Amino acid sequence: MIRAGIVGGAGYIGGELLRMLLGHPEVEVVAATSTRLSGRRVDGTHPNLRGLTDLSYVAPEQLPECDVLFFTASSLDDPAGRAGLAARGKVVFDLSADLRLKDPALYRRHYGREHPAPELLADAVSGLPELHREHLRTADLVSVPGCMASASILALNPLAAADLIESRVTVDGRVGSSGSGASAGEMNLHSERSNVLRVFAPLGHRHQAEISQATGLDARMTATGVDAVRGVQVVVRATARPGVTEAAIRAAYRAAYAREPFVRVIAQKRGNYRFPEPKLLLGSNYCDVGFAYDAASRELLVIGALDNLVKGGAGNAVQSMNIRMGWDERTALGFPGLHPI
Amino acid sequence: MIRAGIVGGAGYIGGELLRMLLGHPEVEVVAATSTRLSGRRVDGTHPNLRGLTDLSYVAPEQLPECDVLFFTASSLDDPAGRAGLAARGKVVFDLSADLRLKDPALYRRHYGREHPAPELLADAVSGLPELHREHLRTADLVSVPGCMASASILALNPLAAADLIESRVTVDGRVGSSGSGASAGEMNLHSERSNVLRVFAPLGHRHQAEISQATGLDARMTATGVDAVRGVQVVVRATARPGVTEAAIRAAYRAAYAREPFVRVIAQKRGNYRFPEPKLLLGSNYCDVGFAYDAASRELLVIGALDNLVKGGAGNAVQSMNIRMGWDERTALGFPGLHPI
Amino acid sequence: MIRAGIVGGAGYIGGELLRMLLGHPEVEVVAATSTRLSGRRVDGTHPNLRGLTDLSYVAPEQLPECDVLFFTASSLDDPAGRAGLAARGKVVFDLSADLRLKDPALYRRHYGREHPAPELLADAVSGLPELHREHLRTADLVSVPGCMASASILALNPLAAADLIESRVTVDGRVGSSGSGASAGEMNLHSERSNVLRVFAPLGHRHQAEISQATGLDARMTATGVDAVRGVQVVVRATARPGVTEAAIRAAYRAAYAREPFVRVIAQKRGNYRFPEPKLLLGSNYCDVGFAYDAASRELLVIGALDNLVKGGAGNAVQSMNIRMGWDERTALGFPGLHPI
Amino acid sequence: MIRAGIVGGAGYIGGELLRMLLGHPEVEVVAATSTRLSGRRVDGTHPNLRGLTDLSYVAPEQLPECDVLFFTASSLDDPAGRAGLAARGKVVFDLSADLRLKDPALYRRHYGREHPAPELLADAVSGLPELHREHLRTADLVSVPGCMASASILALNPLAAADLIESRVTVDGRVGSSGSGASAGEMNLHSERSNVLRVFAPLGHRHQAEISQATGLDARMTATGVDAVRGVQVVVRATARPGVTEAAIRAAYRAAYAREPFVRVIAQKRGNYRFPEPKLLLGSNYCDVGFAYDAASRELLVIGALDNLVKGGAGNAVQSMNIRMGWDERTALGFPGLHPI
Repeated sequence: MIRAGIVGGAGYIGGELLRMLLGHPEVEVVAATSTRLSGRRVDGTHPNLRGLTDLSYVAPEQLPECDVLFFTASSLDDPAGRAGLAARGKVVFDLSADLRLKDPALYRRHYGREHPAPELLADAVSGLPELHREHLRTADLVSVPGCMASASILALNPLAAADLIESRVTVDGRVGSSGSGASAGEMNLHSERSNVLRVFAPLGHRHQAEISQATGLDARMTATGVDAVRGVQVVVRATARPGVTEAAIRAAYRAAYAREPFVRVIAQKRGNYRFPEPKLLLGSNYCDVGFAYDAASRELLVIGALDNLVKGGAGNAVQSMNIRMGWDERTALGFPGLHPI
Repeated sequence: MIRAGIVGGAGYIGGELLRMLLGHPEVEVVAATSTRLSGRRVDGTHPNLRGLTDLSYVAPEQLPECDVLFFTASSLDDPAGRAGLAARGKVVFDLSADLRLKDPALYRRHYGREHPAPELLADAVSGLPELHREHLRTADLVSVPGCMASASILALNPLAAADLIESRVTVDGRVGSSGSGASAGEMNLHSERSNVLRVFAPLGHRHQAEISQATGLDARMTATGVDAVRGVQVVVRATARPGVTEAAIRAAYRAAYAREPFVRVIAQKRGNYRFPEPKLLLGSNYCDVGFAYDAASRELLVIGALDNLVKGGAGNAVQSMNIRMGWDERTALGFPGLHPI
Repeated sequence: MIRAGIVGGAGYIGGELLRMLLGHPEVEVVAATSTRLSGRRVDGTHPNLRGLTDLSYVAPEQLPECDVLFFTASSLDDPAGRAGLAARGKVVFDLSADLRLKDPALYRRHYGREHPAPELLADAVSGLPELHREHLRTADLVSVPGCMASASILALNPLAAADLIESRVTVDGRVGSSGSGASAGEMNLHSERSNVLRVFAPLGHRHQAEISQATGLDARMTATGVDAVRGVQVVVRATARPGVTEAAIRAAYRAAYAREPFVRVIAQKRGNYRFPEPKLLLGSNYCDVGFAYDAASRELLVIGALDNLVKGGAGNAVQSMNIRMGWDERTALGFPGLHPI
Repeated sequence: MIRAGIVGGAGYIGGELLRMLLGHPEVEVVAATSTRLSGRRVDGTHPNLRGLTDLSYVAPEQLPECDVLFFTASSLDDPAGRAGLAARGKVVFDLSADLRLKDPALYRRHYGREHPAPELLADAVSGLPELHREHLRTADLVSVPGCMASASILALNPLAAADLIESRVTVDGRVGSSGSGASAGEMNLHSERSNVLRVFAPLGHRHQAEISQATGLDARMTATGVDAVRGVQVVVRATARPGVTEAAIRAAYRAAYAREPFVRVIAQKRGNYRFPEPKLLLGSNYCDVGFAYDAASRELLVIGALDNLVKGGAGNAVQSMNIRMGWDERTALGFPGLHPI
């Protein structure tokens, strides 16, 4: 059993990490920290875990020795957190946005300040197993990508890698309220956030830099909050290069994902669920991808879906940990999602 | 044109008062107060009113002279507010819970303290036109009842008045999130409040005292928050007195409500909407009532539905104002609700 | 009082027409037809109208003489219906897709057959008052545009007319379930249709031809069903022509809509509702439009929102009728929408 | 590996059985039948199972030999189905309502006809492990109780068994749309079923007979459809016998459920989730129970929650099968549910 700790355990990503790790046969969760809730039971904030754990939160400074650490929020402005990210001898998974952009100049542009610890950027391996599995086998610092970025990259990368599409793509991201976290403000009150189609990032969402970095494409992103708690869907418009056939697109996806345990290429011709639908993925570690193509106009619509807290967050982290530790990659990630829901 | 002011205009009840009063041909809204948002446009917080008004909030102390005043929140701990309630020469509508219970002892029991201005209780007329229309014609201080109380009283009073039911009734109240107001806390975050069946008041909800006061019955109430923004439904279990027939029950409702403009007795035998359904009433001033009766067991289920912000709040206030001013009672209250929704 | 009849009164558009016309001071609704429900009360299918009408459906062949007729569904395959559309001496509003495309070749491409009555196409005036007000004053046959088309055209036309954008635009349409009508099949069951982000028309939705026809742009449309009953939002990506400033875009909208009673240009800088949000418009005849612009990249995001059954259907028809009859254009269309909801 | 077959695999209960059994290490699913969809892939109707199975439906008459059979719908009017229920040599789980009521007279009263196979009633063991575990160890015919009945029985039985409450209880059941099944009609269209508080069984719901049969209490039930796909909550009003303390109630629950793997007694004092909340249980096999008690009035509110398709259906069947086969009772039932959702 390896010893795992969660720095920032009281948020939604912390809750999903706990759910998965408590059911992981190789992992013992030794601590979850919370400054505000130190001493309070973990299942007070994560009531779905009642009966599964007697753990209580500890203050960050009480975190015991761990083999594996998960940081759920930005640590850059906290010296202890930064030291934690930089420490070696353990494996660190960072689920914040701190280390996602490799280029400090990109960070500056999208986050409006100098990166406080640029020396960490080179070390961090992206926690997206489908693209970085080999590097993850030996990584000591893993940066888990953003939820909409993960869906977009998985939907686009096979096409970009095979040079089937032109560089400029537009990404329409839709996301549920859990993406705003457990301590969101008035704008996330039920009466305000229900029934919305809230365009909260019309142009230039931060995740577009991640997508461009990973795929080499020129991605332009718009993001809309929808009336869902969980779930991300990205609808990407691309233009195929001249001569590209539907068969070529399908072949590129098959080549990329035929052996991937957590990416499904949806290729039904009919039915309500012939394109990726996030509601089927709640709690699951799948990313579903699919597309529609009009060869005459070369218009290509690519769609990706996932659960923002799982394959878009905690699930990617656990899958990366499984790879890093040499375990079956699917361990503790077996839940397939529900229908109907 | 009479001059109307709203003390506490930035909340949800304030917004509904504004929507109705801005469309009222006899009323000029001269001011809406907000301590926090003084100087900001009213349509910033009530975006459905964009294009209908250029009003901005004023600080409470800047409230100009008005003929009619609406208080949307408790004034008991604010000397100026209490003075406002007590002042005569204008007509005051209080939509808080301050003046709903006539008996200070009941107030003490349900609100956990002495009533700070018991002298006001005797003056206040209940703003439920169906029971107090005649008193409302001359009232200078009107206390609008609670949303679940209004639905329950309208559903029960004809039966109680005709002595058709035994005293003990149980009330199962269901209410949407707007009942918690525009400044509710973490428990009302979309991710927490969505999909709920949250029993927030298992026994002894405050509104049960209002119901008993109005009907003379011994009401016991349970309240559940449901995944809706607006809407109240009360499902009341009662026991008919021996010998009571379905026809007698129907006759009691007809007698009470045949001429009421805003209470509909739903008596369909079939269909999805054969019992009162709050979703049909969003934005409308109707209270729908209906029932199911098993004469053999004398089990009687009485159901009431309304929009908590309209007939359960602002609409009752405007209807009461119309009566008080001698206008057509239905003025500015004509919206019938939507289907489907 | 003019006499109005609704051919096909039992569907959702029929219900909205009834709601508005029953509250219209110049109109008497003399009949609503339904083959299936002939003889049954209108408020059985439109329960929000209980207490407002005692009308029952009549069979189509029993339709009495009317001054104004509304057709809610396709009449092309019904000889009586076609005769109704062609008859003169009354004013006809067609809310189906039959007469929306002026060019029979476009109809053939999008509807997969020859148009059965091409002679009607030239006569039909588009029921979008903002573009066709003058023609509507004398029109005897009005074709009300599609819901997503209406939102897109109103959002794009000022920019196209002022030649501020390049021709190619992509339209991402989102629509609630009421767009599928009251007799939709298994795919619209609550358990299947809830929580969806259902890409049902990935490329080439029919409404894109309407948008191109009205604006002269080359529109490419994708449509997604979202978890809402009512509401349409279109999010349009366009590219501004070189040198176009934000001020120029704003000026074009102001010029087009400053005097329009039912188009609001949303230009808030902050807040949850700074872009058009359909939930604020349920039951209202507003179309809200707004935009975000990045002058450096010339990326322009244009957003439109409306209620698909009102400004995207029945409301446009009633507004067109008001114009045709010389009444105040806003008659019976005063409901502003609700917040919160 | 035992061989399992599902008779009626295309419905929602069939889908949940498939989800669980495909993940069960001791079970091979050899067939799922569907008359309508014979030859079509199982994951066409259960899209959450894509990638997990290549199974296609077979016609009922093609069902191969199985060790365990699950019937998801009524078989009483189908001779082959009845023969299947009566056959011995295999273990049969019936998830329909056919065999739930032991007394043919009760069946007649609640289902309006004579029971066509009363000889089966005596053989059938109720598939509620918490009450019938010992009988289940040897049962060959198991009748899984109704969803609202399961929740009510688990919430009430400890109190009834310890004689802590008076006989008359009222049950307010709330249920999501999946309870109506995958082939429900127009009344379950998204536009009609969304946002509802639909009192569909005001008095005398069939499940009340099951509750009374299991607990010996005189249960009176009301059922409301709520805007959820999955989930059942029952809110039960009971009257404690004189002298009963809160501690006694708590002790009764503890005694009954301390060792039960799938019943959790929720006993938090504070927080949003201090009473059983079905949204936390989606996909999980837990039934959560809790209560509120006012000793002075002896009013007792008992609350139960579960997922109607899992602990209220397929999960109870699988748990019963695990018991019958001598396996760990929790096998394939490990998913704890999600938060937030």
